[in-house]
Amino acid sequence: MSEGVRLFRIATAHPGDITGLERLVDGGELCLEQVVAVFGKTEGNGCVNDFTRGYMASTLRHFLAQRLGAEMAAGIALVMSGGTEGVLSPHITVVTRPVRPPTVRETAREGALRLSVGVARTDVVAPEALGRMAQIKAVASAVKTAMSDAGTDDPAQVHYVQIKCPLLTAASIERAAGGTVTTDTYESMAYSRGAAALGVACALGEVDPAAFDDTSVLADWDLYSKVASASAGAELDHCEVILLGNAAGAGGDLVIRHALMRDAIDGDAVRGLIAGDEAREVVQIFAKAEADPRGRIRGHRHTMIDDSDIHQTRHARAVVGGVIASVVGDSMIYVSGGAEHQGPPGGGVCAAVLRQASATGEPPARISPISAPGQGAGSLVYL
Amino acid sequence: MSEGVRLFRIATAHPGDITGLERLVDGGELCLEQVVAVFGKTEGNGCVNDFTRGYMASTLRHFLAQRLGAEMAAGIALVMSGGTEGVLSPHITVVTRPVRPPTVRETAREGALRLSVGVARTDVVAPEALGRMAQIKAVASAVKTAMSDAGTDDPAQVHYVQIKCPLLTAASIERAAGGTVTTDTYESMAYSRGAAALGVACALGEVDPAAFDDTSVLADWDLYSKVASASAGAELDHCEVILLGNAAGAGGDLVIRHALMRDAIDGDAVRGLIAGDEAREVVQIFAKAEADPRGRIRGHRHTMIDDSDIHQTRHARAVVGGVIASVVGDSMIYVSGGAEHQGPPGGGVCAAVLRQASATGEPPARISPISAPGQGAGSLVYL
Amino acid sequence: MSEGVRLFRIATAHPGDITGLERLVDGGELCLEQVVAVFGKTEGNGCVNDFTRGYMASTLRHFLAQRLGAEMAAGIALVMSGGTEGVLSPHITVVTRPVRPPTVRETAREGALRLSVGVARTDVVAPEALGRMAQIKAVASAVKTAMSDAGTDDPAQVHYVQIKCPLLTAASIERAAGGTVTTDTYESMAYSRGAAALGVACALGEVDPAAFDDTSVLADWDLYSKVASASAGAELDHCEVILLGNAAGAGGDLVIRHALMRDAIDGDAVRGLIAGDEAREVVQIFAKAEADPRGRIRGHRHTMIDDSDIHQTRHARAVVGGVIASVVGDSMIYVSGGAEHQGPPGGGVCAAVLRQASATGEPPARISPISAPGQGAGSLVYL
Amino acid sequence: MSEGVRLFRIATAHPGDITGLERLVDGGELCLEQVVAVFGKTEGNGCVNDFTRGYMASTLRHFLAQRLGAEMAAGIALVMSGGTEGVLSPHITVVTRPVRPPTVRETAREGALRLSVGVARTDVVAPEALGRMAQIKAVASAVKTAMSDAGTDDPAQVHYVQIKCPLLTAASIERAAGGTVTTDTYESMAYSRGAAALGVACALGEVDPAAFDDTSVLADWDLYSKVASASAGAELDHCEVILLGNAAGAGGDLVIRHALMRDAIDGDAVRGLIAGDEAREVVQIFAKAEADPRGRIRGHRHTMIDDSDIHQTRHARAVVGGVIASVVGDSMIYVSGGAEHQGPPGGGVCAAVLRQASATGEPPARISPISAPGQGAGSLVYL
Repeated sequence: MSEGVRLFRIATAHPGDITGLERLVDGGELCLEQVVAVFGKTEGNGCVNDFTRGYMASTLRHFLAQRLGAEMAAGIALVMSGGTEGVLSPHITVVTRPVRPPTVRETAREGALRLSVGVARTDVVAPEALGRMAQIKAVASAVKTAMSDAGTDDPAQVHYVQIKCPLLTAASIERAAGGTVTTDTYESMAYSRGAAALGVACALGEVDPAAFDDTSVLADWDLYSKVASASAGAELDHCEVILLGNAAGAGGDLVIRHALMRDAIDGDAVRGLIAGDEAREVVQIFAKAEADPRGRIRGHRHTMIDDSDIHQTRHARAVVGGVIASVVGDSMIYVSGGAEHQGPPGGGVCAAVLRQASATGEPPARISPISAPGQGAGSLVYL
Repeated sequence: MSEGVRLFRIATAHPGDITGLERLVDGGELCLEQVVAVFGKTEGNGCVNDFTRGYMASTLRHFLAQRLGAEMAAGIALVMSGGTEGVLSPHITVVTRPVRPPTVRETAREGALRLSVGVARTDVVAPEALGRMAQIKAVASAVKTAMSDAGTDDPAQVHYVQIKCPLLTAASIERAAGGTVTTDTYESMAYSRGAAALGVACALGEVDPAAFDDTSVLADWDLYSKVASASAGAELDHCEVILLGNAAGAGGDLVIRHALMRDAIDGDAVRGLIAGDEAREVVQIFAKAEADPRGRIRGHRHTMIDDSDIHQTRHARAVVGGVIASVVGDSMIYVSGGAEHQGPPGGGVCAAVLRQASATGEPPARISPISAPGQGAGSLVYL
Repeated sequence: MSEGVRLFRIATAHPGDITGLERLVDGGELCLEQVVAVFGKTEGNGCVNDFTRGYMASTLRHFLAQRLGAEMAAGIALVMSGGTEGVLSPHITVVTRPVRPPTVRETAREGALRLSVGVARTDVVAPEALGRMAQIKAVASAVKTAMSDAGTDDPAQVHYVQIKCPLLTAASIERAAGGTVTTDTYESMAYSRGAAALGVACALGEVDPAAFDDTSVLADWDLYSKVASASAGAELDHCEVILLGNAAGAGGDLVIRHALMRDAIDGDAVRGLIAGDEAREVVQIFAKAEADPRGRIRGHRHTMIDDSDIHQTRHARAVVGGVIASVVGDSMIYVSGGAEHQGPPGGGVCAAVLRQASATGEPPARISPISAPGQGAGSLVYL
Repeated sequence: MSEGVRLFRIATAHPGDITGLERLVDGGELCLEQVVAVFGKTEGNGCVNDFTRGYMASTLRHFLAQRLGAEMAAGIALVMSGGTEGVLSPHITVVTRPVRPPTVRETAREGALRLSVGVARTDVVAPEALGRMAQIKAVASAVKTAMSDAGTDDPAQVHYVQIKCPLLTAASIERAAGGTVTTDTYESMAYSRGAAALGVACALGEVDPAAFDDTSVLADWDLYSKVASASAGAELDHCEVILLGNAAGAGGDLVIRHALMRDAIDGDAVRGLIAGDEAREVVQIFAKAEADPRGRIRGHRHTMIDDSDIHQTRHARAVVGGVIASVVGDSMIYVSGGAEHQGPPGGGVCAAVLRQASATGEPPARISPISAPGQGAGSLVYL
């Protein structure tokens, strides 16, 4: 079996801690030259003034530049998502793939479908473009580039598309002098995520770009992607795309699939995602969370939207993180908040990376579900 | 079948809203004279300066006094628990039982075991007594009174003991002039809940009162009750006990049982509690939530304890509320925070009131689990 | 000297505490029949889910109805403003005036200018009207009614106009089905306050109603009133106006004047307001606070707008409350947040009610400024 | 006039922004070799999980090491204080002094008294020592070393002693296995600050170390230093001391003095500090803030201590920052929270660094007070 895409899930002690990564690199287990992306969950508020994302990103950038040189380091996509409410455990997930010439990757399309990753980025999103068709189209174009990079042209094999997108700050709003979609910095995060998700939906044919316009963003909730996950942050001014799917010839022993959580307590969707699969090990979960914007969940009023002390995204991450962790038995998972146009209102994608049974037919130990209540799985888990 | 204890679960639109209750009373469905207790979940922060508890309690007191007279109203136990983080939905649960002479209740002990309720209250807990053996003993004594009131002397038939206990405020700490167990008002809530829970454990024989002392409170985590649930609030200065169990001759068609969640994501315990019981309908859930005080859950670090923006009890309610709701399909449940000595560290009781199959053998519609994602169960549910 | 308008400033121990008021009434010092308005500062977050306003309002309504009858009680304007950040001390200010036939009040216009009060209210403000010209015009009309009620037609003698206005909730937004000025509940508070303030400005000739439209609200910051103070709350659906000014023949020994704070740290404006007036006692302060929406104060960046943990109105009340208290030496003052169109960006009105020197020429003890650091003025101050 | 100690006050755009510092260094205005300390105000919550302190500290460390080499960089004291509530503006203050052999510094004691700085650090403070006599003694010893480094042995010439001290985290508490002074991480910050301040008081003869013990910390409020300012943070495990005073022969044109604010609204103390000094320019302010632990300020109840949404230190910084800014007309000042044993209960030190009149007798432009409301002083101010 040829080596394929790998995921290293590494616990962090604080938003400036990369000692776990350094150990893996120095120990020869993780080859930095193969890193294409890093997903992080950092312990800030996940909202406008969450500097834990920037702290971790800057720490990683510095380390990568030191080891790889500035140019190569700049090519690695960093997606830091703030907010580890409830049981969510701060960590980073490093994604690697064998270094092969692009031509090889694009032509080798044979063999079993295996986890594949593609990355791309847009140009700078001007404050005036944020949350509007201009951002949507830029993201759609980048997603297609990422599919090509991942070695697939089949939307059905795309299971998770992470977008990191910018937000408006008091400074950028002032600079744009009235031309922005909103003057509320927190609200701008929703607009940016929403437009990014619609960009994914356009690229994958989930919605028809000709059928809507600027006014549809954060308004027409029937438009959504089932695999998009967008996070907004103040630390970048363009959009970064990391696409996870399955591709023939990708090699390795990992696959990815996804389910759509219809609401924040849709534990059945998560159970269905990993059920009947005793021969597979859950390697990592990527999911989106949001408070149902209609103010109710299964008929009952919730108070997340009217809460002026804790933002709704924080509530939602706590719930969805808890629900998924209760099914997979592991809380060091990637759950990010704000699911505008990412699934139906109140719902969102839940993607699972799974390890196939070994060649010998022996099922691998399932890492996640075996940790019973009261037991521990160890603080550094690398996969 | 003789009428027995009944539960009415009523949605509230805000902490001063009792229109749902008024409608039931005015419509003749709920007999105020039979009310023994009201459990409420109100939408405050559940911490020291949560006035939503007092708002709802004062609204209820006023209504009850108006309809029943001041004396009779004063005999009804009100337990308001603040904090509806995540999906939890604000509501009140009104518990009624047929008005029968106590002698009848105590002697009628025959027939099937059915849901029974008993209430009691302690004297005022002095600021100096809070969180210490004095409070523990007062609660233990009240629990025994409540068991007798519920018509049982078998600890095995006690499935949920709710205690509402006082806390220290800046004012009471000043008054006690240094004699209190802590000078931190938020921390005093933990001490009060812990002592109340140990009082329950003493009464039910779960721990030996001779084997510990003042210093064990919030220190010796091996001491705990599996059925206690304590909430602290600024609106009372004594402890109120509401005990739910099964008693022979209680009548009606409800029963109660409980499970112990070993940690906040122990969904299996909840599933086990209601599983294999297709002939029963889940009527209401009563549960406790807390952040694991050791800072880890199943081996992974959580950030709830070190979070200075959101108190750990708020995080924990969001998680446990979400996990239980994901199993029973309903978010208008009673989950209260701060589980010191209420279950093992990080865990807590989860009790379910269930309705028996009807006499005809036809299973009743299961209210909770039938609400699928995206569906609604209606905002006013009375049982 | 004929008796005139009086202010009773009463400390509260919590948002349901009116024992101070009861004592004054039962002791014969405060005549309930003379009450025209109650201003309250309650200790909630002052944002959407602040139920302390409703708690105090409902407690007062119940008490007033019990003592005065429902109809008379309903005529008393209650303005509860949430948020006692920093040193601000929870309290209510009861405003009374002698009961005289309106014809007398309107014709007695002779004698010295003395504190006068007028009240009025608008019809229900539909969710669709909130934050728009419809609300502005309704408020302007009510302000004129209130001026007439106060016995003045001179805008120069109007020094403080308090408006209590509604906000949008998740429920009302849903009801209005897309027709509201915003779908963000917190933002709706700003729109409602802004429109109310522009209504005051129109009535007093500070702005020309023909010169702007719906789009000017929260956009054209050159439009503002120098005496308006608006608070939004979920507990009412119309607007209430309480106008304080000076009128000939009003009687009593109180006067009011105001200054405009140019920014949140404009202590000089406050010092100027009470300076050179050794013969007068500061009886109460009414002020507005807001974070400068441009993100800077005197050239330096502030972080209030980008703070997703604490809303900017909370920061601003803490600052302005502290600055004013540092000048007048008293923290039981009325400072309310959110000063959209109430003064220039970042600034707002600061009005002082002062007591004139006694007839004998002896200056009264200045209550506020005499309390030196470390000293106390007593917790119940009635004036 | 020989060159002496200088202060560079530099605005930051976020907790990882040191571009202002880089510009000064690259422009030749600030000589990195002369840097002895950096004070920072960063925009986190100032409590346990405030990672903005670590972010700025790590950014500075990296820059300094790159330019000066690791060893020299390690000798520079970094004191990052989190929390810019209200009008406080994020910035760093860089303190430089001419590089002279210590022997010269210690013997040159002649000439006018001018601003002098001394630094020192303790060994690692074990979790068990934190908040106890062991920490107090270690700090006292370091303060004496810092006085010597500053070239003074006169406690009357010591006007501000900054201590940066560690706190307990969930991890360190677990490690210490019950031996810590508290198990509440937030409370541990208070213990650490309190012990550090008592260390200063011991060194300066303000209290008698023989007259108290472990139990006095956070208990006997009569014990305090009038010049200590302590900040706790998770990013260090020892204590750092930066002492500011006046010393003969220090050179330069700056002096320092201090006043004691008796409570949070003691604007008079601040006015007194800078009054009658028209020939001096205010260069920077260093102050402490705390909520009065007795729950009242000048007789009126405040709600800071019972607030479970916003920690009291955050309220206090907003108030004291606003009060001082309203006097000096500038919000880019250093105000840090938590003043246990740093001044009387509710009060704290306020130190001002002032620039002397020039030799020609011409008064320098007063930078701070000249900025009138509505005007700006520019975002980068270096002094």
